[in-house]
Amino acid sequence: MVVVMGPEASQADVDSVVDLVRTAGGEAFVSSGVSRTIVGLVGDVEQFSTLNLRGMPGVSDVVRISVPYKLVSREHHRARSVITVRGVPIGPDTLTVIAGPCAVETPEQTLAAARMARAGGASLLRGGAFKPRTSPYAFQGLGEAGLKILADVRTETGLPIVTEVVDPADVDLVASYADMLQVGTRNMSNFPLLQAVGSAGKPVMLKRGMNATIEEWLMAAEYIAQRGNLDIVLCERGIRTFETATRNTLDISAVPVAQRLSHLPVIVDPSHSGGRRDLVLPLSRAAIAVGADGIIIDVHPQPEMALCDGAQALVDSDMRELASVAANLAPLVGRTLTPAPAVTPVG
Amino acid sequence: MVVVMGPEASQADVDSVVDLVRTAGGEAFVSSGVSRTIVGLVGDVEQFSTLNLRGMPGVSDVVRISVPYKLVSREHHRARSVITVRGVPIGPDTLTVIAGPCAVETPEQTLAAARMARAGGASLLRGGAFKPRTSPYAFQGLGEAGLKILADVRTETGLPIVTEVVDPADVDLVASYADMLQVGTRNMSNFPLLQAVGSAGKPVMLKRGMNATIEEWLMAAEYIAQRGNLDIVLCERGIRTFETATRNTLDISAVPVAQRLSHLPVIVDPSHSGGRRDLVLPLSRAAIAVGADGIIIDVHPQPEMALCDGAQALVDSDMRELASVAANLAPLVGRTLTPAPAVTPVG
Amino acid sequence: MVVVMGPEASQADVDSVVDLVRTAGGEAFVSSGVSRTIVGLVGDVEQFSTLNLRGMPGVSDVVRISVPYKLVSREHHRARSVITVRGVPIGPDTLTVIAGPCAVETPEQTLAAARMARAGGASLLRGGAFKPRTSPYAFQGLGEAGLKILADVRTETGLPIVTEVVDPADVDLVASYADMLQVGTRNMSNFPLLQAVGSAGKPVMLKRGMNATIEEWLMAAEYIAQRGNLDIVLCERGIRTFETATRNTLDISAVPVAQRLSHLPVIVDPSHSGGRRDLVLPLSRAAIAVGADGIIIDVHPQPEMALCDGAQALVDSDMRELASVAANLAPLVGRTLTPAPAVTPVG
Amino acid sequence: MVVVMGPEASQADVDSVVDLVRTAGGEAFVSSGVSRTIVGLVGDVEQFSTLNLRGMPGVSDVVRISVPYKLVSREHHRARSVITVRGVPIGPDTLTVIAGPCAVETPEQTLAAARMARAGGASLLRGGAFKPRTSPYAFQGLGEAGLKILADVRTETGLPIVTEVVDPADVDLVASYADMLQVGTRNMSNFPLLQAVGSAGKPVMLKRGMNATIEEWLMAAEYIAQRGNLDIVLCERGIRTFETATRNTLDISAVPVAQRLSHLPVIVDPSHSGGRRDLVLPLSRAAIAVGADGIIIDVHPQPEMALCDGAQALVDSDMRELASVAANLAPLVGRTLTPAPAVTPVG
Repeated sequence: MVVVMGPEASQADVDSVVDLVRTAGGEAFVSSGVSRTIVGLVGDVEQFSTLNLRGMPGVSDVVRISVPYKLVSREHHRARSVITVRGVPIGPDTLTVIAGPCAVETPEQTLAAARMARAGGASLLRGGAFKPRTSPYAFQGLGEAGLKILADVRTETGLPIVTEVVDPADVDLVASYADMLQVGTRNMSNFPLLQAVGSAGKPVMLKRGMNATIEEWLMAAEYIAQRGNLDIVLCERGIRTFETATRNTLDISAVPVAQRLSHLPVIVDPSHSGGRRDLVLPLSRAAIAVGADGIIIDVHPQPEMALCDGAQALVDSDMRELASVAANLAPLVGRTLTPAPAVTPVG
Repeated sequence: MVVVMGPEASQADVDSVVDLVRTAGGEAFVSSGVSRTIVGLVGDVEQFSTLNLRGMPGVSDVVRISVPYKLVSREHHRARSVITVRGVPIGPDTLTVIAGPCAVETPEQTLAAARMARAGGASLLRGGAFKPRTSPYAFQGLGEAGLKILADVRTETGLPIVTEVVDPADVDLVASYADMLQVGTRNMSNFPLLQAVGSAGKPVMLKRGMNATIEEWLMAAEYIAQRGNLDIVLCERGIRTFETATRNTLDISAVPVAQRLSHLPVIVDPSHSGGRRDLVLPLSRAAIAVGADGIIIDVHPQPEMALCDGAQALVDSDMRELASVAANLAPLVGRTLTPAPAVTPVG
Repeated sequence: MVVVMGPEASQADVDSVVDLVRTAGGEAFVSSGVSRTIVGLVGDVEQFSTLNLRGMPGVSDVVRISVPYKLVSREHHRARSVITVRGVPIGPDTLTVIAGPCAVETPEQTLAAARMARAGGASLLRGGAFKPRTSPYAFQGLGEAGLKILADVRTETGLPIVTEVVDPADVDLVASYADMLQVGTRNMSNFPLLQAVGSAGKPVMLKRGMNATIEEWLMAAEYIAQRGNLDIVLCERGIRTFETATRNTLDISAVPVAQRLSHLPVIVDPSHSGGRRDLVLPLSRAAIAVGADGIIIDVHPQPEMALCDGAQALVDSDMRELASVAANLAPLVGRTLTPAPAVTPVG
Repeated sequence: MVVVMGPEASQADVDSVVDLVRTAGGEAFVSSGVSRTIVGLVGDVEQFSTLNLRGMPGVSDVVRISVPYKLVSREHHRARSVITVRGVPIGPDTLTVIAGPCAVETPEQTLAAARMARAGGASLLRGGAFKPRTSPYAFQGLGEAGLKILADVRTETGLPIVTEVVDPADVDLVASYADMLQVGTRNMSNFPLLQAVGSAGKPVMLKRGMNATIEEWLMAAEYIAQRGNLDIVLCERGIRTFETATRNTLDISAVPVAQRLSHLPVIVDPSHSGGRRDLVLPLSRAAIAVGADGIIIDVHPQPEMALCDGAQALVDSDMRELASVAANLAPLVGRTLTPAPAVTPVG
C-alpha cells in the first residue's frame, strides 16, 4: 500500500501517517520527491484499510498495490485448477461445452434441448428453473417443478445439471437437485447468496456482473471460497457499455486476464453477451480461440416458442456446426473436447 | 410495439407477422416504405412480448413504444406522490434531508451522528446494520444489535430510521425496527428481495443500480409496487462510467427524467456517488437545485475512525453549512425544508 | 512514480530497475513488503516515462503519482484564473451566461437569438458557422458567411462572439472574426487543432471529449497552454455512458473536481448534455449551484425550424426564466451575474 | 421513421404531424393503439430529419428505422468488398496480417521491425510518422523523415506501407509516400480529415473511435465514401468502458456485426486494445476465429527501448508463434493467409 502525500503536505503530516502505521504494527518507508512525498506501507493491508489514511491531513491518495483477494489468486495457488461436476472436468486441458434451454418450460422441451446439447458436443446441461427477470410481468420459471424435470432429463441423457439459484433461502432445495449451482450476473454482488452457495457443498458457476470489474468478480469468488468452497468456475457473459448493437459487450480479454490473476477456470457465455443467434457461433469460436476453458450456450427445439430469450437460442443445425467448430479448434489451443458422460442405465 | 421488417423480407413474411398478432388478439397496421416495411401493433404488449416476433423470418427489429412499467408510471398516477415515513413527508413540496452514519458501530457513535444529522437539518436518520461489502474481509455490520441501537437513538432524538436490508430472510426482522427499508445499489435487481420488501408493509427507498438504466430502475420499483406497496422513494446514487476521479458519476439528469416518467419521489445520495467529502456539499447544492425531493448524507463524529466509508462522511462544521444551504436553496425551487419530528417524551 | 514488482520478482530484477533509474539521473527508494516490493522514483517523471519500466523483468505495474499536466494545474498557479473575452470576465467571482443558436442560419435568426440571449442574462453570444455533424448528409454550417453574420450581430447587440473551429487550416480565418474560439467535444483530442488554437492569440473554450477522463481533458488544455495561451475555459458537456434516456450524461461532479485540479474556469453546457429542452433549466440550476463559472445555452427564435439540434433550444419564455434563475442563484454561491457589455454606438 | 405520440397527444397534434410530413412530400400512416398513437413515415428520411418532428406538440419520440449510412451499407452493395493495397488484398477470403512498429524511430529499428513482421506472416507494414499523443510532452513522431524511412524499408522488404495522418493539411504529403492512409481512433469524428482522406486517392484504414457506436463508425466511413473513395477498411481497436485491467475493451462482437451491416472489410488491432504484450496472441487468435479479415500488430526489435507503446510490442519469438497461429487458424474460418509481395529488385 502506498500513501501519496499532496504537494501542500507538511513534514508533520508525513510523520502522522508514519506514526499511525507503526502504531498499527506496520512499517512505513518515506520517499521524498521533488514535488511529492510517498509513503510505502508494509504489513497487514486489511488492517491498514481500516485506518482511514485517506482522511488524514496532507494525504492526497492511497493506492493499494497488492490484490485484495487471496484464496482465488494465483499467488495462493500457482497451478490452474480443474473443477469436476459429477465427473465432468472444467479446466486448463479440456474444452467443456455446457448447453441447454434458457428456461425449463416442459419435460418435452427440456429433453429435446438436452439431446440437441449432447449432439452438439455438450457434456453438461444448463436450464433455468428460477429465472431473474427484469420485468415482474415476465415468466419467472417453474421453480421446483423445473428442477424435477431437469433431474429426469439428467437420468435420461446422462448430462449433469447446471442451474441458477436466486434466493439464499432456495440454495438447499436447488442443491438437492443440481450438480452445479449458477449465480447469475444480477446476483454477483448478492453477498448473502454468495455465502449460501459457498456453504452448499456443490460446485458453483459465478457469472460476472455486467457492471463488475475483473477485480470485483474475483472478490465475489473470494466470498464463496471463504466458506470453504473452491470449486468455482468463472463465467464471462458480457459487460454493459455504450454500444447498443449487442445486448452486452463480450469482454473477450477478460478470459486471459482472469486466468492470469486466478487459478479458477474461466468460461464464456456467447449467448447472453450478444443476445443474438447470429453472433453465437462467431463468439463461440472467439471464446475457444482466446483460451476459454469452456462455453455455455442456449439451445431450444423451437426458439420462436421460447418463453425466455428465444432470439439467441441455437437450433439443431447450429449445434451440429458448433460440435464441428469445437472439435476442430480445441486441439489448436492444446485442449481436448470434454466427452459427455455415458448414460447410466436405470435400474 | 413496432415490428421492423428487414429489407429482404417478403410479403409472406409480413403476412405471417400480421397473422400471429391477430391470432394473439391484437391488431396490426402495415406501413410499406421505400426500402422497409414496418408493422405497428395495438393490443396487450405483455402478451406480444411472449410471441418471439424478433425470431420470425424477415423481422429485423422489434421496438417497444410504450413503457414497460405501469403502477409507478405517471400514466397510471398523474400527480407526483408524497411518501410518509412515520409522519415525515418526502414529496414535491418539501426538501427532506436524511443523514446518519454509513454503518452503525456503537451506541455513542450513532447517537452523536444522529444529533449532528438533526442539527444539520435532517428529519430522518440513516444507518446501516447489515452492510453489503465488496470484500468478505471488510466490516459487515452489527446485524440485529445495530438495529437495536438505531431504535434507541430514534427514541432519544425523535428521528425515524432508514436502514438497509440485504437478504429476503431478514426483511421481517429489519421491518420490525425500521421506519423505512433501504434496498441498496447492488440489490436493485435482486428480485426476491424486491418482492419481500414489497410485502413488508413499510416504505422503501430503492437505490438505483450503479449499472441500471432509468427504465430498469423503474422496473425494479414496479416489482415492489406489484406486491401492493407504492410507498417507494427512488434514490439516485451515481452510475458506473469510465471516469475514475470520482467513485461513481452522479447522474444529476436522472432526477428530472425519473420525476417525469414516474410519480414517485426522487432523492439523491451525494456521499456515495462522489465518494469524497469535499464533493458532498457541491453535489448537495446541485441535487437541491435540480429539483430533488431530498438528499441522503453520510455523517460521522470521527470520520478518521469510521469502519465504513469514512472518506466521504461529513463532520460537524459541514453539517452546519449543509443546514444553511438547504434552508436557502429550498425556497428557490418552491420547497420547504422538512422539519424534524418532535422528540416524544418517554413516559 | 512507483514501480510495483510482481510477487515472483528476484532481487536482481529490483536491482535492474534501480540501476536504470539512477542511470537516467533519478533516485530510487526500495520498500520491501511481505509479499511485494515497491520502488519509489524521484526525479524527472517525463524522462522516466520513456524508460519502459513496465516492460522490465519482474515489474508488475508502474503507477504515476504526480499529475501529468503542469501549466494548467493548481500546483503551477495556485489561485483560480479569470479569463477575459473582449472585456467579459469568466472566473471564480462571476457567473457568465453564454447563449445563442446552435448554428448560424440567417442574419434574422441570429439577431433574434442574440436578443433573446441578452434578455436572458447572457453576456456572450455563441453560434456555429462550422458545424461538425455525425452525418455527411446533415447541414454543415455557413462557413465564412456565418462568421460575417456573427460579426454584424455583435455590432448590433454588443455581445462578443464564441464560435467553433474544426480544421486547423481555418483557425486564422475564424480568429479574425471571433472573440473566443471553441474546440468541440469531437475535437478534444485533435492535437493539431489544439496547437493551432494555442497559437491564435484568442481565448479558447475547450469542451470535454464525451469519452475523456478529467485528466485527459486537462492534458488537452495543456496542449493549448504549451503554445503560450493560458486563456482557456473548460466546458463540461456530458459524457457517454450506458444510459440512453439523455443524449449524454452530464458529469456534474467534474466541475468541482476540475476546479480543484486546475486554475482554469469551468463552465457547463446543459443543452448538449441532456439534448432535451425540458432538461435545460433544471440542469442550468444544478450547474450554477454546484459552482460552475458559467453556462452555455442553445436558444432559437423558432426551434421547430432549426437546422441543428432544435429539440434542445430554449425559447423566449425559457430565457426569461433562466434570467431569473441566474440572478437568484448566483449570490447563493458567492457570485455576481456578469452583465452584458454596452452596445457601442457605430460611427 | 416512426413518430411516437405521447399519451396526452390530441387528434389535432396527430393531424399536424401528418400534414407536415405530407407537405414535405412524404406519406404518413397512423396506427392508434390503446394508450398511444404512432405515425409511420415513408419517403426521404434525410428530409424528415430536418422537420424537427420531435419538437412538435404531442410528440414523445421519433425513432429512425432505416440505417443512416448508404454507400457503405450492405443494402447498397450486397457482396463483401475486397480492398487492395498496392496489390495486397484485404477481404472475405483472406487473412491479412499488418505489422510494424508503433512509431518510426530510426531506419535500423524500422527495417528490423519490418523483417520481423514479414517473418511473422505480415504482408503489409504499419509504422507511425505522425503520432497523436495524449501528452504534449511525449514523442510526436519524425514527420516526413519518418515517411522517407518507411519508403526505404518498403523498397528493401517489399511490404506496402500503412501510416497514420492526423492533420488534413498533411494528407497530400502522407499520401505521396503511403500505400494506405490510417485514420486513428481519436480522429474518427474529425470530419475535415475524413473528407481529406476521402479525396486523396489511396485506400483508408478507419479505426473505430474508442467512444463510437458501430453506427457512428459506419457514418464516419460514409464521410470518406461520399468523396468517392470506397476503398475503406474498418479497424476495431477497443472501446472505452469501466474496466481498467486492459487499456480498452476489445469489442470482438463488433467484427461480425459490422460485417453484416457493411460490405467493407473489418480487421482487429489486438495490440492497442489490450495495451499488454501478454494479451496480443490470445486476442489475435480470437480475432481470427471470430472472422476478422485481418489483424494489425505492433512489433519492435527492442521493446524496452521503444519511444511509444513498448509495453504491447511483440518480439521475435512472439511473431514466430503468430505466424503459426495465423497459418493454422485461417483455414478453419475458410481463409488463406495473404502472402507478402515479392521484393522487387531495384535497378
